[in-house]
Amino acid sequence: MRETILFILSAPSGAGKTTILKKVMAVLPGLVFSVSHTTRPSRPGEVAGRDYHFVSREGFQAIREGTPPGFLEWAEVHGNLYGTGRAEVERQLQAGQDVILDIDVQGALQVQKAAAPVLIFIAPPSLTELESRLRRRGTESEDTIRLRLENARKELKFTDRYDYLIINDRLEEAIDSLRSIIVAERCRRRRSPDGLPVAGIC
Amino acid sequence: MRETILFILSAPSGAGKTTILKKVMAVLPGLVFSVSHTTRPSRPGEVAGRDYHFVSREGFQAIREGTPPGFLEWAEVHGNLYGTGRAEVERQLQAGQDVILDIDVQGALQVQKAAAPVLIFIAPPSLTELESRLRRRGTESEDTIRLRLENARKELKFTDRYDYLIINDRLEEAIDSLRSIIVAERCRRRRSPDGLPVAGIC
Repeated sequence: MRETILFILSAPSGAGKTTILKKVMAVLPGLVFSVSHTTRPSRPGEVAGRDYHFVSREGFQAIREGTPPGFLEWAEVHGNLYGTGRAEVERQLQAGQDVILDIDVQGALQVQKAAAPVLIFIAPPSLTELESRLRRRGTESEDTIRLRLENARKELKFTDRYDYLIINDRLEEAIDSLRSIIVAERCRRRRSPDGLPVAGIC
Repeated sequence: MRETILFILSAPSGAGKTTILKKVMAVLPGLVFSVSHTTRPSRPGEVAGRDYHFVSREGFQAIREGTPPGFLEWAEVHGNLYGTGRAEVERQLQAGQDVILDIDVQGALQVQKAAAPVLIFIAPPSLTELESRLRRRGTESEDTIRLRLENARKELKFTDRYDYLIINDRLEEAIDSLRSIIVAERCRRRRSPDGLPVAGIC
């Protein structure tokens, strides 16, 4: 039995991450999404427990200050708290599933210190194209769009810390790339910290 | 422009390597096969310059002793000489193509010392299954089959030196795995010897 893998997917808002991830999960067995906790209000269409665990600021702090700390990583983004529950991820990996986390750059680098995740970044072809996509979406205010673009600019500077970079220029190719990365990592002869190979067979 | 990649594919005789590689090359653009030199006689159906460059033992030695040495790697297998021409591989990589070599374990480890190839091993589900496949093929003598099985046993010990291991249990899945590894490596943020990331975008 090969070891299970923790994937982290990051992307600026509007890069197409959610669409790509949904398509890949629909065709790839053995991959589960770990649902994050957040203090931000739910958006229309979002389902609690599926898209996020929606919690109050107080509830979030209680998990965070648990023994051991209840989050693998947490961060404040756009004024809201987001966190990845440690227990849920560990339970999924031990159950023989690969786990994928949808978290931002700060969070990804925190998890990298604690575990050995595979980091995947999805980038838009350009910031200009990202801006058009955010405007076409038509759900956000001018201020929010400007904040998201500023954050994208900052996040793109961290792509060299990632293992893989997918440019979402043509959607079908980006979907194929993400799916291929997951299949390939399952075939990878992974190295344990002491340099010995561990199971990685497909 | 991302840097081009040198892939090496190894497998024991009868593991299905040739079938898998042909199927993948038929669907994946930008990947070329580098044709090896060999002193072994051609088999029915093999085409000179497509399957191998068939050369005499003297011709082989002349290339090998060139300045610089004309082979990236060479080895004696089953009593015949096999070698990978350096100039052909370098020309293909510089022309913007990813190159795939079909060479044995000894050769793969030689190339690994000189370049930074991605090593992929295709293994049969078991030695028993490999034996049945070789017998079903019906083209080889009992002695040859025994020699191939003994070599397979030796080669399988080296799979931990490979980056990826594909078990060819179900052919369609093995084809998908090889294709995925190549697509994923194209998205990989590769590390140069000094630890700096180099282009790897898909």
